[in-house]
Amino acid sequence: MSTHMPAITSENTFLPFGDQRNAPFYGKDILSVKQFNRSDLDYIFGVAHEMRVMVERIGTFDLLKGKILANLFYEPSTRTSSSFTAAMERLGGSVIPINEVRYSSVSKGESLPDTVRTLECYADVIVLRHPDVGASKLAAQYARKPIINAGDGVGEHPTQALLDLLTIVEELHQVDGLSVTMLGDLKYGRTVHSLARLLSLYNVQLHYVSPEILRMPKEIIDEINKKGIQQKEHVDLDSALSETDVLYVTRVQKERFSALDEYERVKDAFVIDLDTMSRAKSRMIVMHPLPRVSEISIEVDADPRAAYFRQMEYGLYVRMALLAMVLGKS
Amino acid sequence: MSTHMPAITSENTFLPFGDQRNAPFYGKDILSVKQFNRSDLDYIFGVAHEMRVMVERIGTFDLLKGKILANLFYEPSTRTSSSFTAAMERLGGSVIPINEVRYSSVSKGESLPDTVRTLECYADVIVLRHPDVGASKLAAQYARKPIINAGDGVGEHPTQALLDLLTIVEELHQVDGLSVTMLGDLKYGRTVHSLARLLSLYNVQLHYVSPEILRMPKEIIDEINKKGIQQKEHVDLDSALSETDVLYVTRVQKERFSALDEYERVKDAFVIDLDTMSRAKSRMIVMHPLPRVSEISIEVDADPRAAYFRQMEYGLYVRMALLAMVLGKS
Amino acid sequence: MSTHMPAITSENTFLPFGDQRNAPFYGKDILSVKQFNRSDLDYIFGVAHEMRVMVERIGTFDLLKGKILANLFYEPSTRTSSSFTAAMERLGGSVIPINEVRYSSVSKGESLPDTVRTLECYADVIVLRHPDVGASKLAAQYARKPIINAGDGVGEHPTQALLDLLTIVEELHQVDGLSVTMLGDLKYGRTVHSLARLLSLYNVQLHYVSPEILRMPKEIIDEINKKGIQQKEHVDLDSALSETDVLYVTRVQKERFSALDEYERVKDAFVIDLDTMSRAKSRMIVMHPLPRVSEISIEVDADPRAAYFRQMEYGLYVRMALLAMVLGKS
Repeated sequence: MSTHMPAITSENTFLPFGDQRNAPFYGKDILSVKQFNRSDLDYIFGVAHEMRVMVERIGTFDLLKGKILANLFYEPSTRTSSSFTAAMERLGGSVIPINEVRYSSVSKGESLPDTVRTLECYADVIVLRHPDVGASKLAAQYARKPIINAGDGVGEHPTQALLDLLTIVEELHQVDGLSVTMLGDLKYGRTVHSLARLLSLYNVQLHYVSPEILRMPKEIIDEINKKGIQQKEHVDLDSALSETDVLYVTRVQKERFSALDEYERVKDAFVIDLDTMSRAKSRMIVMHPLPRVSEISIEVDADPRAAYFRQMEYGLYVRMALLAMVLGKS
Repeated sequence: MSTHMPAITSENTFLPFGDQRNAPFYGKDILSVKQFNRSDLDYIFGVAHEMRVMVERIGTFDLLKGKILANLFYEPSTRTSSSFTAAMERLGGSVIPINEVRYSSVSKGESLPDTVRTLECYADVIVLRHPDVGASKLAAQYARKPIINAGDGVGEHPTQALLDLLTIVEELHQVDGLSVTMLGDLKYGRTVHSLARLLSLYNVQLHYVSPEILRMPKEIIDEINKKGIQQKEHVDLDSALSETDVLYVTRVQKERFSALDEYERVKDAFVIDLDTMSRAKSRMIVMHPLPRVSEISIEVDADPRAAYFRQMEYGLYVRMALLAMVLGKS
Repeated sequence: MSTHMPAITSENTFLPFGDQRNAPFYGKDILSVKQFNRSDLDYIFGVAHEMRVMVERIGTFDLLKGKILANLFYEPSTRTSSSFTAAMERLGGSVIPINEVRYSSVSKGESLPDTVRTLECYADVIVLRHPDVGASKLAAQYARKPIINAGDGVGEHPTQALLDLLTIVEELHQVDGLSVTMLGDLKYGRTVHSLARLLSLYNVQLHYVSPEILRMPKEIIDEINKKGIQQKEHVDLDSALSETDVLYVTRVQKERFSALDEYERVKDAFVIDLDTMSRAKSRMIVMHPLPRVSEISIEVDADPRAAYFRQMEYGLYVRMALLAMVLGKS
């Protein structure tokens, strides 16, 4: 546990664990951030907070002892796969890791529904990572057991969005009233799209800072606008930094630019360093979905406001919560 | 558990679990279907049935707690590997997954006996999948711990044959007196060869339906003939369908044909669809070793007689039974 | 357990297990053999012996129940990876296996420190195998959780050296006074370098038998010389065999020779066969880090003095000891 992680507070609901098969998510699939309302999020973050308390106190406990997770990854993602594995193991459950899908029966032409119907004979819940948009929804149509979407192409990655929001909740103890600034590649970044959608359930201000060619897509801005959320676009961070409570950084990839000189011209405006931090609020956090390359200088890591590694820990708690919930043990 | 799965009956022996080191399979290798007589099969299916009862009641239990399985796969097989992993985990044991053998010490020239003698220092039982015929037998000659053959090339895959037969036992509550029809590629199909051999221990009728170039090999027909089993070959399913109790479907692969027009001419005769089912007995089952491509229409999946996904579940129970048996806990 | 393995003796300290967070290795990294003094080795081997006793008596026990190991392998090593997995599982802990690092976020440019800081959010201890010298040290600089070096390029592989030395301790019940002969490729062999360094803490005689071009490096000879250890180089085994208590064999690889005829001329002098064994002491052991190709004839395997497969078992015990120690449970 990082020494910088804020102390546990009682601001979130503390739910006693138990067999709650009439609980809201028992037997449900987790497919999209669009399926959650604010009350759902309160519930999820309450359970996730409780998971944090338990992990910090005793590390591991047997809430899901005897339950089996099939971790079905059609494309590699060490971070997400390890996080779900750890979540299941910290709850006393077991994991069937399936990482080499491209070499297996799938390459013999088996359909995703058939693969899922086979795996649910062995497991109690399936976590699915797939390169195709909509794969999780398709799997869920055929599966009797709960499906958790761990990313389907440029589509959804709901557990990432939930961990991002949990990070804000746990670090800043509120969401309403915050100014959230998203920086970098806002056009292709699946994570910023999903987080923006989730944040639109709260009373927040959103700032978008990106190169011209990587602006937040108009359809997302329109969708969020309908919720009455204030959004503002910026060409550099300076105009938004002083009022930023949450700075969410993503990488600006050279490959997105057709002209190299254009990339060279803008890239430095999207790097966070000690100078940036010196001009930021004293109570704010810097987030990043990781992996980080050079868009946050490593000197920033020691700043207590650098929340990106703690963010990984919140990912563990959110995934523990989701697993417990869909298996009726939250 | 599928709602179509027939209710548990008391027709099979219910064995109390316990430490039975004088049990028939304690410390034994599982290498070939040829090692079993009918009494062995009764015993295995009795334990497998008991496993089913326990899984349906409580999901997981600690019969093999503290035992370790080395899952040694020289070639990928998600289905078989996952099934053994789940079997061990549902019995409270642990698994060492070894999937990337081609990149490992083996590629530095280590012999299979040396690899097995190393792994048995860590594990209590070894499940071996290998591309070479006879690999499991070789491994067993050197190993002190039990070896379970999970498929060795075109050789044996005994746990597949056992799960196929268990499916018949659990679904139809008998084997004697049944008409079993095998359909598709009967020449190259390892599964139909092994199943035919096992069935020859019972009083059954066997029907073989295949394209001319994919007929059941003469040596297998001769071998089964010696047991006094009635066998009949057919050029299409129609002549066998009405009396079929078990329809075992395998894929007819285009690659087996030298002339494409010959494939096109016969392929439709080997596809099971709703029309086929309408002409089949009301009490019969359709089986398939999976993966299925187009040889069974997906509309058939909803028919209660479609047993191929339940078959996967029986695979779990058979593998749980075998692991418990060779470790002296059946 | 091999029937040839010598009986457990009480010559080593038997330490009662318990929560010993003031124990010498609690929270520490295991990076290099250079970090150990003789008292440390006594402690490690005492715990490892205790692990052996427990494994032989009850197989598995829950000393590390609830603890999670991240097994982070940047290059494949079935033997080492499986050994750590088994060690953790025999102590009741869980493992996050991370084997496909080359396909994962690392290939997106993530630094080793960032990967380690992510994984320690999920795990309690990290075992790291990496192709670059110094990788473990770098990882340890950034990690809050203990790092165990499982081999970093041509650098260190301390758990291999410890299991080698434990083999000698358990098999011969002493180290002082022994003649240890290292045979084969002494120039490039990471294992012989580390073992020689560890042995220099004891009162031993070291014999080096190698082709001229594969002699023990001068810097290692000099380093060991300073400890007052007697070292002797030989061109063939005959002159050292009769007084050898421990014969440590490594492979002479054809690729090391520029001229094939030179390889052909020397290779037979570095093969151990029944004739070699007939001229060796009756109380001595033959060791090998494995995989073995042809440098030890398979007829030797049946000789009770052939300790190389038992060596793998001692590897399990050493790794169990180290995991328990760094997690404060030794």
